[in-house]
Order: sequence, then C-alpha cells, then structure tokens
Amino acid sequence: MFDRELYRADNCSVAGTLALVGERWTFLVLREAFFGVRRFDDFARLLGIARNLLTDRLSTLVDAGILAKEPYRDQGSRERMQYRLTAKGAELVPAVLALMQWGDRHLAGPEGPPIRPVHAGCGSPVQLALACSAGHHVPPYEIEPVAGPGALLVSNAPAAGAG
Amino acid sequence: MFDRELYRADNCSVAGTLALVGERWTFLVLREAFFGVRRFDDFARLLGIARNLLTDRLSTLVDAGILAKEPYRDQGSRERMQYRLTAKGAELVPAVLALMQWGDRHLAGPEGPPIRPVHAGCGSPVQLALACSAGHHVPPYEIEPVAGPGALLVSNAPAAGAG
Repeated sequence: MFDRELYRADNCSVAGTLALVGERWTFLVLREAFFGVRRFDDFARLLGIARNLLTDRLSTLVDAGILAKEPYRDQGSRERMQYRLTAKGAELVPAVLALMQWGDRHLAGPEGPPIRPVHAGCGSPVQLALACSAGHHVPPYEIEPVAGPGALLVSNAPAAGAG
Repeated sequence: MFDRELYRADNCSVAGTLALVGERWTFLVLREAFFGVRRFDDFARLLGIARNLLTDRLSTLVDAGILAKEPYRDQGSRERMQYRLTAKGAELVPAVLALMQWGDRHLAGPEGPPIRPVHAGCGSPVQLALACSAGHHVPPYEIEPVAGPGALLVSNAPAAGAG
C-alpha cells in the first residue's frame, strides 16, 4: 500500500505537465493542433480567443518544444507564422484522447460523440487502453502507485552531518 | 482528411471534460484521490491549498459524480467528511496517467520518475497504450480525427423553414 505521506510532491510528473499545458486555453490550442490547425489566424477564429492570449499560449508551447513555429507565405501576402505539433507534442495526444474518451462517455448527448479518433493506416477506431507489462488488461481501479526511482522522501530529520 | 472548419466545437468532449476537471487544483485533488487520499484535512495539508478553495474544488467534483462524499468519525472526535473516487471518477485515471507518462518522459530528472503505476493484481508496471479495433498498436502521429455521430455542422445557411 502506497503511503502518500512519505513522499514530496514537488517533482510530480502530473503537476509538472499541468504547469506546462494545464491552462484551459493552452490545452484547447493542443486540441486544435491535433485536429490539424496550423495557422495563427485559424487558431484565433476557431477558438474565439483574444489574439494577445493566443500569442502567449503559443509561446508557452513553442518554448516547451511542444509546437514548432514555422514561417509560411501565401501568394501575394506577407510572411506569417504557423505552428505544428513536434514529436514531443504528439506524445500529448494520449492526454487529449483520455479527456475526450471520458467526455464521450459521460457528457455526450444521445446522438453520440462528435469526434472519433481512427487509425490513419486502417480507419479503425482508436482507443486508449491500460495494460501491464505482464500482458493483462488493467481496469483503472486495479492501478496502484508505488514509489519510483525518483521519489523524494519527506524528511523531518536533520540532514546527516547537520547540527 | 478531417476538415475542422466544417464543425462546431461547443459540444467538444475535451472542452467539456476540461470545464469540469481542467482547473489546476481540481486535477491535483484527483491526483491525490488516485494516491489514496480521502480526508479533507489530508488533501489540504498535502496540497498546501487554502481550505476555502479546497471546499470549492471538492464540491465541483462531488457535484459531477467524480468523488463521493461520506461521513467518518475517529474515536473521540466529531463527524468529519471524506471523499473517494467513484467508478465515474476512476475513469479519469487514464487522463492522470497520460499526463504523468508525458512528465516522466520529458520532465523527470536523471534518477527517473517519482511514481510508477503498477497492476495491483500482479505488480507489473502499467502503461497507457493506443490501439485500434483491428489490433494495431497506434503511435500518436497515426491518429486521425473523423466526424462522429454527434458532430454538429457549422452552417451559415438559414435553418429549414426560416425566413
């Protein structure tokens, strides 16, 4: 049984990821990037977000290496910027899908979910699944946290050598 | 190819789920619930969150059916409240793990991740995986959104019968 009281949370991977992408607009920018949106003006219009907020959220994602910023130029126009998911950004797709899957199940109307993620290779629906390395399908209530190699102990004892 | 421009986003399952649990403290309350934390005082102390904020976030999660509120009484104390994940709440564990997995991969120090999720039945490490119904393992960049049965078209045309 995991004893939460023993460990510090300041190196928590959930909190760290949320600090980067947990803000609502930031996550919705990621959703649009997953839908194939690339251009600043398209993000702004589709999300209905103020341009200064969008600039800020895109910078956060570019600085974190989640989106890559690239110039493009339509014929007869000045150079503008577009943004695409990097490989590191694409690894957040499971988080987008996890939230989507929960919403599809618990919030969608009787007509069903608005979006279905499919495998581009074969067109079959994609699902997130939890499996253990022994090959078992794992329902959420059978998951248990254990301390990993980077766990930091809460210690009230003075450090060795101190006072 | 999915044409994002054709569809409305106001019934988006990602946005709907984020509206419930996307706020940073709310998601960290879920993390603690996944770690087995139950009692108000424990949430408050472990998160370092102000009690009025915690009350608010717990109410949101109880109202959404994600946490269940139950009385408990320690010997010699007055009745207090504890909160546990419902089945609906446990279905958010994949979202917690998706964020954790990304953070473990991109933010953890050289010593490794602080927490490892394992299968309670067998002790083997648990991983989130994307698979399609045809049985293929699906890397994130091979996922494509298509319109589902609940997709709402953007329509600038007047509704049938109008004007």
